[in-house]
Amino acid sequence: MNVLIIHAHNEPQSFSTALYQLAEETLMGQGHEVQVSDLYAMNWNPVASAADFGARANPDYLVYALEQREGAKHQTIAADIQAELDKLLWADLVIFNFPIYWFSAPAILKGWFDRVLVSGICYGGKRFYDQGGLAGKKALVTVTLGGREHMFGEGAIHGPLEDMLRPILRGTLAYTGMTVLPPFVAWHVPYISNDARQDFLRQYQDRLQHLDQDQPLEFPRLEQFDERLYPLPR
Amino acid sequence: MNVLIIHAHNEPQSFSTALYQLAEETLMGQGHEVQVSDLYAMNWNPVASAADFGARANPDYLVYALEQREGAKHQTIAADIQAELDKLLWADLVIFNFPIYWFSAPAILKGWFDRVLVSGICYGGKRFYDQGGLAGKKALVTVTLGGREHMFGEGAIHGPLEDMLRPILRGTLAYTGMTVLPPFVAWHVPYISNDARQDFLRQYQDRLQHLDQDQPLEFPRLEQFDERLYPLPR
Repeated sequence: MNVLIIHAHNEPQSFSTALYQLAEETLMGQGHEVQVSDLYAMNWNPVASAADFGARANPDYLVYALEQREGAKHQTIAADIQAELDKLLWADLVIFNFPIYWFSAPAILKGWFDRVLVSGICYGGKRFYDQGGLAGKKALVTVTLGGREHMFGEGAIHGPLEDMLRPILRGTLAYTGMTVLPPFVAWHVPYISNDARQDFLRQYQDRLQHLDQDQPLEFPRLEQFDERLYPLPR
Repeated sequence: MNVLIIHAHNEPQSFSTALYQLAEETLMGQGHEVQVSDLYAMNWNPVASAADFGARANPDYLVYALEQREGAKHQTIAADIQAELDKLLWADLVIFNFPIYWFSAPAILKGWFDRVLVSGICYGGKRFYDQGGLAGKKALVTVTLGGREHMFGEGAIHGPLEDMLRPILRGTLAYTGMTVLPPFVAWHVPYISNDARQDFLRQYQDRLQHLDQDQPLEFPRLEQFDERLYPLPR
């Protein structure tokens, strides 16, 4: 497999960093090719703006997704975006490795979604969910967070973590057609012992060695909806 | 009331811009004070990093929330963050005005949450949800999106929009103690007629003139949980 790891933590010595480095080593050890985009180290620009397009379909009024379609087609999209898009299209598995900020991705990673998942290639028109442009690729979300595990789940104070991650798991990764694996979660990371961290690393390594046995999450398929995207009777 | 509008669109002529300008005019016309943070116009930096702190509690290892607590306490947090925090603490009502990107906020706004909602002031320890540091303030999320209304809701292809917005409505705004009003949503904006846009503007103006009649969304309260944040029997 070709594996792309997108890493987004602002402390190079963080446990999140240890997780991505373990993934890199483990997957390379299995004979896979691995590329890493360390967004903080790259000084990645997360702001979707007019500056992302060398030529404009409409120079007077910016519709970002429209310019993405034009820019991707004519390869006039900003070089930093094109480089990430090339890695994404090369990959069979993409791992998004980050600390939870506000029950979501840090802005630097949100801006990777905003800028790199270009309309016309990753999705567009009726090409989304199982028909999305990235169909055939797998996605794994690997997160660290401060909360304890019992604060998440049905009836828990924050509800299920997967509900909080819905815009990413469903609205972004599944939307573009990717097969989304259950997230790997390291709980309460800033407050736990080194032994507990080692346990998470062992669990993660085991998970990575058996990714092909993972049961993907389930999401809507377009065949369940009519031409206008109203649900069909079951 | 003191009103803060946080606006995040990369096209100054956008319909999203028309919505925030209408809110500004309407609320000022009612005698309220209004400040606007136009994040693109301000060239807002959304990346939470070590550069946000003039002095560090721990210069060798960055725990962002910990440094936020120290920086806010000693007023050594970056000037651009402090300026936004001052506006936020001044406001009785905060309107977040943005186009939906990936069923969520554009990265430039996500980075406003990441950097401005500082630990120790906006939340911290057991100060969250109804006990959050911003209790007493109201929040209104005003969004534009490309999808049609029938694509959202129970059984619809994307499910309820409020479920997609959960990390913002519940995980961010309600988490910090704000009273969260139902979002105002302008559907299918890139594709609709000028008349349809005028209808949305009229609906929005009417909504703004009667905000005190809005029924806020409901979220957990800490009294429903024990000391360790396990749910209490009802």
